[in-house]
Amino acid sequence: MYNAPVKDMLFAMTELARLDELAALPGCEDVSRETVQAVLGEAAKFSGEVVAPLNVEGDRNPSRWDNGKVTATPGFADAFRQFATGGWQGVQHPAEYGGQGLPKLVSTPCTEMLCSANLSLALCPLLTDGAIEALLIAGNEAQKQRFLPKLISGEWTGTMNLTEPQAGSDLALLRARAEPQGDGTYRVFGTKIFITWGEHDMTENIVHLVLARTPGAPEGVKGISLFIVPKFLVNDDGSLGARNDVQCVSIEHKLGIKASPTAVLQFGDHGGAVGYLVGEENRGLEYMFIMMNAARFTVGMQGVAISGRAYQKAVAYAKERVQSRPVDGSSKEAVAIIEHPDVRRMLATMRALTEASRALAYVAASESDFAHRHADAAVRAQHRARYEYLVPIVKGWSTELSIEVTSLGVQVHGGMGFIEETGAAQYYRDARILAIYEGTTAIQANDLIGRKTLRDGGAAAQALLTDVAATVDALGAHDSAPFKAMRRHLSQGREALAAAVDYVLDHAKRDPNAVFAGGVPYLKLAGIVLGGWQMARALLASARLFAENPAFHGAKIATAQFYAEHVLPQAVALQAAIVGAKGGEGVLALDAEQF
Amino acid sequence: MYNAPVKDMLFAMTELARLDELAALPGCEDVSRETVQAVLGEAAKFSGEVVAPLNVEGDRNPSRWDNGKVTATPGFADAFRQFATGGWQGVQHPAEYGGQGLPKLVSTPCTEMLCSANLSLALCPLLTDGAIEALLIAGNEAQKQRFLPKLISGEWTGTMNLTEPQAGSDLALLRARAEPQGDGTYRVFGTKIFITWGEHDMTENIVHLVLARTPGAPEGVKGISLFIVPKFLVNDDGSLGARNDVQCVSIEHKLGIKASPTAVLQFGDHGGAVGYLVGEENRGLEYMFIMMNAARFTVGMQGVAISGRAYQKAVAYAKERVQSRPVDGSSKEAVAIIEHPDVRRMLATMRALTEASRALAYVAASESDFAHRHADAAVRAQHRARYEYLVPIVKGWSTELSIEVTSLGVQVHGGMGFIEETGAAQYYRDARILAIYEGTTAIQANDLIGRKTLRDGGAAAQALLTDVAATVDALGAHDSAPFKAMRRHLSQGREALAAAVDYVLDHAKRDPNAVFAGGVPYLKLAGIVLGGWQMARALLASARLFAENPAFHGAKIATAQFYAEHVLPQAVALQAAIVGAKGGEGVLALDAEQF
Repeated sequence: MYNAPVKDMLFAMTELARLDELAALPGCEDVSRETVQAVLGEAAKFSGEVVAPLNVEGDRNPSRWDNGKVTATPGFADAFRQFATGGWQGVQHPAEYGGQGLPKLVSTPCTEMLCSANLSLALCPLLTDGAIEALLIAGNEAQKQRFLPKLISGEWTGTMNLTEPQAGSDLALLRARAEPQGDGTYRVFGTKIFITWGEHDMTENIVHLVLARTPGAPEGVKGISLFIVPKFLVNDDGSLGARNDVQCVSIEHKLGIKASPTAVLQFGDHGGAVGYLVGEENRGLEYMFIMMNAARFTVGMQGVAISGRAYQKAVAYAKERVQSRPVDGSSKEAVAIIEHPDVRRMLATMRALTEASRALAYVAASESDFAHRHADAAVRAQHRARYEYLVPIVKGWSTELSIEVTSLGVQVHGGMGFIEETGAAQYYRDARILAIYEGTTAIQANDLIGRKTLRDGGAAAQALLTDVAATVDALGAHDSAPFKAMRRHLSQGREALAAAVDYVLDHAKRDPNAVFAGGVPYLKLAGIVLGGWQMARALLASARLFAENPAFHGAKIATAQFYAEHVLPQAVALQAAIVGAKGGEGVLALDAEQF
Repeated sequence: MYNAPVKDMLFAMTELARLDELAALPGCEDVSRETVQAVLGEAAKFSGEVVAPLNVEGDRNPSRWDNGKVTATPGFADAFRQFATGGWQGVQHPAEYGGQGLPKLVSTPCTEMLCSANLSLALCPLLTDGAIEALLIAGNEAQKQRFLPKLISGEWTGTMNLTEPQAGSDLALLRARAEPQGDGTYRVFGTKIFITWGEHDMTENIVHLVLARTPGAPEGVKGISLFIVPKFLVNDDGSLGARNDVQCVSIEHKLGIKASPTAVLQFGDHGGAVGYLVGEENRGLEYMFIMMNAARFTVGMQGVAISGRAYQKAVAYAKERVQSRPVDGSSKEAVAIIEHPDVRRMLATMRALTEASRALAYVAASESDFAHRHADAAVRAQHRARYEYLVPIVKGWSTELSIEVTSLGVQVHGGMGFIEETGAAQYYRDARILAIYEGTTAIQANDLIGRKTLRDGGAAAQALLTDVAATVDALGAHDSAPFKAMRRHLSQGREALAAAVDYVLDHAKRDPNAVFAGGVPYLKLAGIVLGGWQMARALLASARLFAENPAFHGAKIATAQFYAEHVLPQAVALQAAIVGAKGGEGVLALDAEQF
């Protein structure tokens, strides 16, 4: 069972992520509240009715490998076909290649719903999105015409081939090679691992995007090029040609997302896989990085999504399970466990973290839309800087949170949570990959420090801190307990984040190890404070709109207060770990040999 | 691979848990440092060589159920036989029934090693310990003579049968019944679930201890009695008689500890299972609670143990895996990932949390020994109060930590951590039960508030806070960075804990929901501060002993500093969640229907 929280999604879109302003931008004429509500309603229906029921089945009966062929979980191919024919693959992609061209702010809740419903199945279109982005960024027109319509229609799927056994996070170590054939094509050789949906039977073709080195390319990351390597070659008339020389030699046995086949792909064992260069030679990593920002944002959304699903399940169980009398003596009978204060605390934690991370992600999506669509280049640049600052936070913070939230989901179920049949454990297992793939949390933190904080001298961070300060001031106009708690803790959190930013700016050159040792704490601190900022904005909005829907807005207000009192205080502890500890001294005091 | 951290164990025993003073108590004449070192050395050898190699096998090839019979993982029965013949089941049990009568402080590291080596296998002797404790506490002499020597020798194993489908944490809801037969025996009827090692083929008999109601017993927890129900009846000459009417109808499919069969036991489907009353009727829960304190302590040790194992594995991988150049530009080549600041931070976190939770548990074990063995009754009572205060903290905090530590263990491995073959994921799955069984963390927190803080008006808590203050003062005699950091953060932590204790004492009567809503934060706060207290004491000891072993004591000092700067600051955030939030207001502001 999955019921998409459409009401909270729409609230975040309209009250926090500026949907109405977005609708006034060029190309967004169709993005009215009514249209958006209709799209979200359809997405909720599809996710809840078609995709969600396959989630448990995928865990019990994962994709199977047999002699190079991978068979998806029964039901997946049909669900994916419905996804494709419903036009869902194309929501955010350009109309000229068959997409719907809707803003990222609108595609984001659709993605969240699909991921909540079934993380494993959702990964296939997510990787296809990545391939589409890469081709849009760097493909030539012929490549676009040949591949994009089929990918956007969901007739074919796409993959991203980066990792090799000796090269995980460190792409400088890549060895796969591509040899030019003199006819404009290349032959690709090498082994790629961890290729999500790298082989399957859901569509007739798969378009692999592969990083490889051409002969004589520079060492390291500056010598990597990007290639299209389709599973089946494509004839000029668009029909499928010969099977290409890429084989799935095995799939992994994983902790979670078991229905999603994680393939080891072998390229070129029989003469070389035919590949087509995308863009220019040696610029592959650059294209991949542009695409990766989108993928990282989406993985952050997966964190929000699995948190939301785990929360729903835990609430349902807590309302149904009867156990023990209340601690306040208000009943002689055992009550539903949701009446017990600690269960309430766990559910409130799950709820507050999910809503805060959702709001921050939607706000980031909106920044991306303004960065692409605003008429004024200077305004676009500001929004781009903010979006780019937020991406590693959305990715790193939302996914780390999802581990905590899904763990609480298990805990709410007590002993039943540990039994696989219950289903809570699946979310806990599935969530664990999110803080790893598309760049671990440490890699997000390095990005946040290096590209997003130091490169612009802290400008994007300072602009955010200024906006948070304005919200802190606005909270001062109210004096009820939720506002007082939020004002106090958001203000302290803002100061903690400001201190961390200053520390990073001041010390990065002279003491890089210390600064990077504080990187993940800095990322978490930024997530907690900027997530808290959204909760504060939600508090202001819900106070204003209270009369329209007292139950809904009352819950938003209570959740904001909980976040202020239970989550935001962690900011000060994180500040101590970054600044007070001078980041590194304690971390680095132990030699490698002393561990 | 598992190499028991004997050096750190001995350090905690001698420098923090007063082993030498303990050795001076009556009955502890044999507990010299040399003997202890020898025992630990043997335990390390047995755990590392015999038990640890079966851990992965148990996960891949769990216990199997077939038509009422359960077959343990291949190799388990033989390892358990070696465990029994080595005398390991009897380490802490009385010599008069065949045990070695060693103090809890000495059996505790042995238990830790066994649990680190193989949590699933270790559960069998741990449950047997529980059955032995229950019989020692409440059995009559004939029962003791009949069952204890076989249990203590490891020829038979024991189980604890509490939970029923409708009665998880809430034993008031128990329905199993026991009908007197007029000959001193009873017939037991009912269904028990979650019975660890409730059926297996490792020994010829299993002694089930079962909670059930006699006819006309009071409702609720005051009408529960305790029964011995052996799998095979035992003849007067000690030989095995008829098969009793208890059947294993299924075992669970679990997230972790898969080799440990979790049985559903059906009593009395064929006329009634023969049972023998232990102690007096209607006092079953009382006996069970005494036993449960021991079991809860041991589950806390399981948390320490799985953290320690995950730490070892992560360190080994981090030293071996080469990836990326250092952030400080000190090498043009990729380096082992342990050189990267965030990997160092993760490993330091794992290490600091493991060592702190180990130290606190060992100190608690020592308190139990003084409570049992000291000549002066008043001194015994003080130690008992301290032990009982510490038990829910050792149980709750160490197990919650183990979820965090094993999750970091996965993270250090990157993508490989998510692949089951790597083994890091098993620890993450195995650890997840620890915060649930033998009472969830919330139940530990309720115990900490109700029985351990309110009942004595905060006396045990205040005595601890006084001792922490003395350590804070002692730190002031040194002025290096580790001492300054520890003094500052331990002092703040102590104040936070004192504030929480005061809050609990002041508000429990007038606002129980608010106080219990802050229960788990209070328990975690107590763990962080009292664990930090041990790290501070370790810091003082290692500074004093530094010259004896600079590498070892240097590492202790660095780890203490890390704990001070990265872990202790969380105390202030927890204080805010308990006291600042008045515990409940934010938690309870949402109605059950609003979730």
